[in-house]
Amino acid sequence: NKNLRKIGKNVNLSVFLSLTALGRVLGCAADVRAQLAEQQRCLEQQTEMRVQLLQDLQDFFRKKAEIETEYSRNLEKLAERFMAKTRSTKDHQQYKKDQNLLSPVNCWYLLLNQVRRESKDHATLSDLYLNNVISRLTHISEDSARLLKRSKEILQQLQDDLMKLLNELYTVMKTYHMYNAEMISAETKLREAERQEGRVKGVSGSGGGVEPVFGLRIEERHQRRNAARKMEKMREKRKAKYSENKLKTLKARNEYLLTLEATNASVFKYYIHDLPDIIDCCDLGYHSSLSRALKTYLSAELSLEASRRAGLEVLEGAVENLDPARDRQRLLGLYPTAFCPPQRFGFQAHMGDTIASQPQVQAELSLRLTQLQTRLASLKIENEEVKKTWGATLTTLQDMTVLDDCDVSQSFTHSPSSESVKSSVSDGYLNKPSLAKRRANQQETELFYFNVRKRKIIIQFIYGFCCKHGFSSHFIYCFWPLFHFGCL
Amino acid sequence: NKNLRKIGKNVNLSVFLSLTALGRVLGCAADVRAQLAEQQRCLEQQTEMRVQLLQDLQDFFRKKAEIETEYSRNLEKLAERFMAKTRSTKDHQQYKKDQNLLSPVNCWYLLLNQVRRESKDHATLSDLYLNNVISRLTHISEDSARLLKRSKEILQQLQDDLMKLLNELYTVMKTYHMYNAEMISAETKLREAERQEGRVKGVSGSGGGVEPVFGLRIEERHQRRNAARKMEKMREKRKAKYSENKLKTLKARNEYLLTLEATNASVFKYYIHDLPDIIDCCDLGYHSSLSRALKTYLSAELSLEASRRAGLEVLEGAVENLDPARDRQRLLGLYPTAFCPPQRFGFQAHMGDTIASQPQVQAELSLRLTQLQTRLASLKIENEEVKKTWGATLTTLQDMTVLDDCDVSQSFTHSPSSESVKSSVSDGYLNKPSLAKRRANQQETELFYFNVRKRKIIIQFIYGFCCKHGFSSHFIYCFWPLFHFGCL
Repeated sequence: NKNLRKIGKNVNLSVFLSLTALGRVLGCAADVRAQLAEQQRCLEQQTEMRVQLLQDLQDFFRKKAEIETEYSRNLEKLAERFMAKTRSTKDHQQYKKDQNLLSPVNCWYLLLNQVRRESKDHATLSDLYLNNVISRLTHISEDSARLLKRSKEILQQLQDDLMKLLNELYTVMKTYHMYNAEMISAETKLREAERQEGRVKGVSGSGGGVEPVFGLRIEERHQRRNAARKMEKMREKRKAKYSENKLKTLKARNEYLLTLEATNASVFKYYIHDLPDIIDCCDLGYHSSLSRALKTYLSAELSLEASRRAGLEVLEGAVENLDPARDRQRLLGLYPTAFCPPQRFGFQAHMGDTIASQPQVQAELSLRLTQLQTRLASLKIENEEVKKTWGATLTTLQDMTVLDDCDVSQSFTHSPSSESVKSSVSDGYLNKPSLAKRRANQQETELFYFNVRKRKIIIQFIYGFCCKHGFSSHFIYCFWPLFHFGCL
Repeated sequence: NKNLRKIGKNVNLSVFLSLTALGRVLGCAADVRAQLAEQQRCLEQQTEMRVQLLQDLQDFFRKKAEIETEYSRNLEKLAERFMAKTRSTKDHQQYKKDQNLLSPVNCWYLLLNQVRRESKDHATLSDLYLNNVISRLTHISEDSARLLKRSKEILQQLQDDLMKLLNELYTVMKTYHMYNAEMISAETKLREAERQEGRVKGVSGSGGGVEPVFGLRIEERHQRRNAARKMEKMREKRKAKYSENKLKTLKARNEYLLTLEATNASVFKYYIHDLPDIIDCCDLGYHSSLSRALKTYLSAELSLEASRRAGLEVLEGAVENLDPARDRQRLLGLYPTAFCPPQRFGFQAHMGDTIASQPQVQAELSLRLTQLQTRLASLKIENEEVKKTWGATLTTLQDMTVLDDCDVSQSFTHSPSSESVKSSVSDGYLNKPSLAKRRANQQETELFYFNVRKRKIIIQFIYGFCCKHGFSSHFIYCFWPLFHFGCL
């Protein structure tokens, strides 16, 4: 009987403990646990990617520093090679003396200076990469790893707390279910005892009311009263047990409800506040440090640009100042003995001979004058025409050389779909099919210009002289030889 | 007698031809000839230097083109290496899908793009050097050589004319001196004849007046008359000779004077007009062509600068847009399963159990509430302090990282006397002796920050919750577990 009751109780418990509900809670907890692990992995992965990116950046800048150093060295060598060559020239020594150079030589020196400047700047750039940008990146990398470690510690603690809560929830729920099952079982037993007591009381009550047989009935009645007392005792005991179980269940349910609310609040708090907070902790200073590292890079590059531009502007000024007139003056000044006119030839009188009036040759001179006047009249016309031709030829020649374009900026456009960059280069000065023709044309015009100029040199002078001195008898002296040699 | 006269005439000529004067003219002519040769040498030297300069420039640009090509190739390799690595990553595939990148990754891509852009630009630069600038310089060099040749032809012709004039001057001067000497000699002879004639006439005249002896005197008189006639004839002859010589001398002197004037005028014209003209012919187009070649170089360099700057500005924009908040959102979006809050845990009733009012546990709950209220009052104070500490620590931490300077432009200053460039680099981020100290300081502050933050995460939440929900009996549910686990 006791065994049977035990079995019945167990069966009741196994039925009463609603396993699906408990299973559901356990399943949820397992899901949450898996999600928490995934969150840790996400944070780790995030930092891993970050560290990898920082490593790539460091490798990148290290390699770029090498490239810049090599570039700088090559430029330095280039500048030095031509500087050494230049330093030994006469021009350079002259330059050191009076700082006065032919304008193309000045451009050449500035060009070499510019290369030297670029060389220095790229060396500085390399230096800044190695000693500044890379160090910053290393520090960011270290910081990221350390922050991850600390953030994970906090995360771990928060997750442990959360898991404790979930375990607690499971425990209190199980306790409530168990207590409730026990209460139901106790109630069943109480009802059973009440039913049995009722039956016993009903028999003794009906027996007491009739009382047909005394002797035997007294013994029987005593026996029945005993049974009823026993029943009542059992019912009391079961009632006490039920009440006890009922209070335990009430407390357990209350505890379960409290824990449930607290768990939900904690989960909410964890997902909505703590997780973003942890991610922020992990990010602490990352963006601003990276920004400063990249800004250092940008500052270095932009300063290099500015320096280069400043150098180019100096060179630009020198190119604008290319001045043939000043260079010619400088050439004449450099070789004074070669270009200084000799003294006038004086009249070398023979044995004190003096120049007197010579009426004897007047007629002959008059004839010469008339001839010259006629020739000069035609020369004047020719000069006008030669002048026009010369001017036009010079203009043509200048237009010819000015026409071609030295603006090559279109070669440096970067449109997203530009594999047409190369082709725009070939539009340049050289690859135009017309270049050979243009060059031939230029030389032809130049030849013509020279012939005209040759003629002009002679004519212009005569004409100018005519206007200046007028037709005097003195004038005749000057043109006689030209006339004589067939120049006119 | 005739021999003697001849000797006398030669002696006279050698004396009369003033050798010094002739020598002076010859010397002058030789000087001028030497100067003319020097002028030719100057022109040649000038063009030689010019051609040498152009050759140097071509060598320079050829070598620089090599350097630029190598630099470009290295940059291309660098970019390609990291691009290839990047292309295989998950991030890149994501990027291709939605163009949405973590902001640091975006910076990294733009950095690689910038290197590719620089690579292309330097290749273009090299191409322009080789196919445009160098060709221009070659043409200028050819032009210079050709112009020199043509200018020398003109110069030679002008110099030949000048030398012809000088020879002519010498010739006419010699002729004048010779004629003048002959005239003087003829005059001497005439005077001699006149003197002899006078003597003869004086004898015959005084004889005629006295007439002392007839026979002999007639013969003698006849003889004397013959002599006088002979004398007169000779005088006449010599006079004619003298007159002839005088006219010849006059013409010769006139010719000499004309030639002298013409020579001086021609020499003046040659030195003042022709020589600068010839130098101009030699220079024709040199400065403007060189200017255009150098302007092409400048245009290429400045366009490269502009392109580089444009790329850097894009990168600058990306660096400005480094945004931790958006990146956190993106991270949460990337892993929705990891960061999505689970469903609320519901009340799992046991066997249809319902929640009723529980007056039995009210006393216990009230006790708990009182305990919590006391604890929360102290927490409120603690929270205020933690909040202050936290804010101050964060500010310190941010100041710490913001303090260091990412402007490195001072490293790129080029003062004339700047070997101090290197030292300014070492003023940078890394080499400050305080860096290690600063780093340690930063980490210490960071650790403190983390501890404060950990505390804050817990307290802040509770405090916020208090204010939001007030102290209700519901509220107690939420904090019981925290209280229970010793968190509060």
